[in-house]
Amino acid sequence: MARYEVYVTYKQGIFDPPGATAERALANLGYEGIQSVKIGKYIQIEADAGLETVREMCERLLANPVIEDYRIVTEGEA
Amino acid sequence: MARYEVYVTYKQGIFDPPGATAERALANLGYEGIQSVKIGKYIQIEADAGLETVREMCERLLANPVIEDYRIVTEGEA
Repeated sequence: MARYEVYVTYKQGIFDPPGATAERALANLGYEGIQSVKIGKYIQIEADAGLETVREMCERLLANPVIEDYRIVTEGEA
Repeated sequence: MARYEVYVTYKQGIFDPPGATAERALANLGYEGIQSVKIGKYIQIEADAGLETVREMCERLLANPVIEDYRIVTEGEA
């Protein structure tokens, strides 16, 4: 059983609605000096699957390759 | 300007709807041997703010401390 962590983020230049909302909300709460907030997904997978299979899961389901980048980190055996 | 990464995950024992949906969808796509999929948030912040302030932002807006845990990693100066 292998463990993977996947980080999904919007591609450079693609609008990030949850990040923009959080930026505005933090400013409304009185926080100053915020340059940027980006919100992506943090996915933890435990599976009998190799890295190539996890990459395929990302392409097919977990990320939207048109607008998102993803990075897979192998965390070793569970 | 400091950079932070925040990882927001459901607390142990709290139902994770996006993770459960992804698990089922991956099984429907034919992937076998999946033990668990958990989906949380991956937040990147650039701000003139200290760690304590970022922790407060998490408590007040970025995470729901009732059902979620969060972990803040300081990434250094931007």
